[in-house]
Amino acid sequence: MTATDPDGYGQLAASLRRLIDVSIRSEVDADAVAAAQAKIDSATEDLSTLTRPGSFGIQQSPDGNPVAWGNVVIGRRNPVAPPLTINWNDDESVWSEFSLGAAYEGPDGHVHGGVCALLLDHVLGATAHQPGRPAVTGTLTVRYLRGTRLGVHLRAEARIDRVEGVKTFVVGHIADDAGATVRAEGIFFHPT
Amino acid sequence: MTATDPDGYGQLAASLRRLIDVSIRSEVDADAVAAAQAKIDSATEDLSTLTRPGSFGIQQSPDGNPVAWGNVVIGRRNPVAPPLTINWNDDESVWSEFSLGAAYEGPDGHVHGGVCALLLDHVLGATAHQPGRPAVTGTLTVRYLRGTRLGVHLRAEARIDRVEGVKTFVVGHIADDAGATVRAEGIFFHPT
Repeated sequence: MTATDPDGYGQLAASLRRLIDVSIRSEVDADAVAAAQAKIDSATEDLSTLTRPGSFGIQQSPDGNPVAWGNVVIGRRNPVAPPLTINWNDDESVWSEFSLGAAYEGPDGHVHGGVCALLLDHVLGATAHQPGRPAVTGTLTVRYLRGTRLGVHLRAEARIDRVEGVKTFVVGHIADDAGATVRAEGIFFHPT
Repeated sequence: MTATDPDGYGQLAASLRRLIDVSIRSEVDADAVAAAQAKIDSATEDLSTLTRPGSFGIQQSPDGNPVAWGNVVIGRRNPVAPPLTINWNDDESVWSEFSLGAAYEGPDGHVHGGVCALLLDHVLGATAHQPGRPAVTGTLTVRYLRGTRLGVHLRAEARIDRVEGVKTFVVGHIADDAGATVRAEGIFFHPT
């Protein structure tokens, strides 16, 4: 536990991400699998004694900011999230650097194309967000240029192309060290 | 362990999905979190004694069929996968029924729009697959009609709209009991 993770849930999710990864790649025998499963079920019991119903939702921090720790892309206590950290430039464009392991596989050794769509939806949407006014996706178009490899350094970027009335048009991509692998265009709205 | 899950890895992933869900919703104190984390780290050690490097990949079953158990959408031993079961109709259209919990959250109480894109990419692609000739996505366009709720019964469907040369055009949607929430169009190719 730390000042920014007072109850240790961020560290718990980090441990779970390691467990998820190795559970996919493990080749131990049935007895060892059963032993691990017993520990997993016991941990589930420990955490089940006090739960909120449904989902994490969007909670508020003590200083009033929204906390999306359960979010499937950026949520630090959601083990399914890589999680991405979104960085804002002064011109409202955004970027994020990350790599993706075995849990995000589609084609052999490659990131599932749908995972690229998931991450791009979030990164493009982040440019359209305004304080207290989250944007929702109207349309997302994803163009696959070539495969995106697991286990390599990746960078996602997005910027606002133009605003027309209630619509914000955003463009972005995911790139490896050899250039873009997937490009996307999104149209976002601010719900009234 | 069962005849179709001889080493128990399918059950292990099912246990891990329960743990992931409760880890996001738990409100136990720091001591209980630390106790659960110790069990998780111990399970990780158990499974780490023998692993394949990288990712699960696409392996072959004894009868020669491809086994994508590590796939992030359908992989039964990937805890990040819901997992979806794809059903084929006689006319080559496909459908899948599922519900999504806390691990797939975006907006409060709702499925992340990017998760809908992820699942639709896979379901649309499944129509374009041919035995031994997997299809890859060229372009995916996703239109969001309204929010998709967590915890409700959902159904995804896809069908081939037309084939033009090397391109297969596929349409599909995700629906709840009140109708479609997200529609998608995909253009798929068969790599030579």
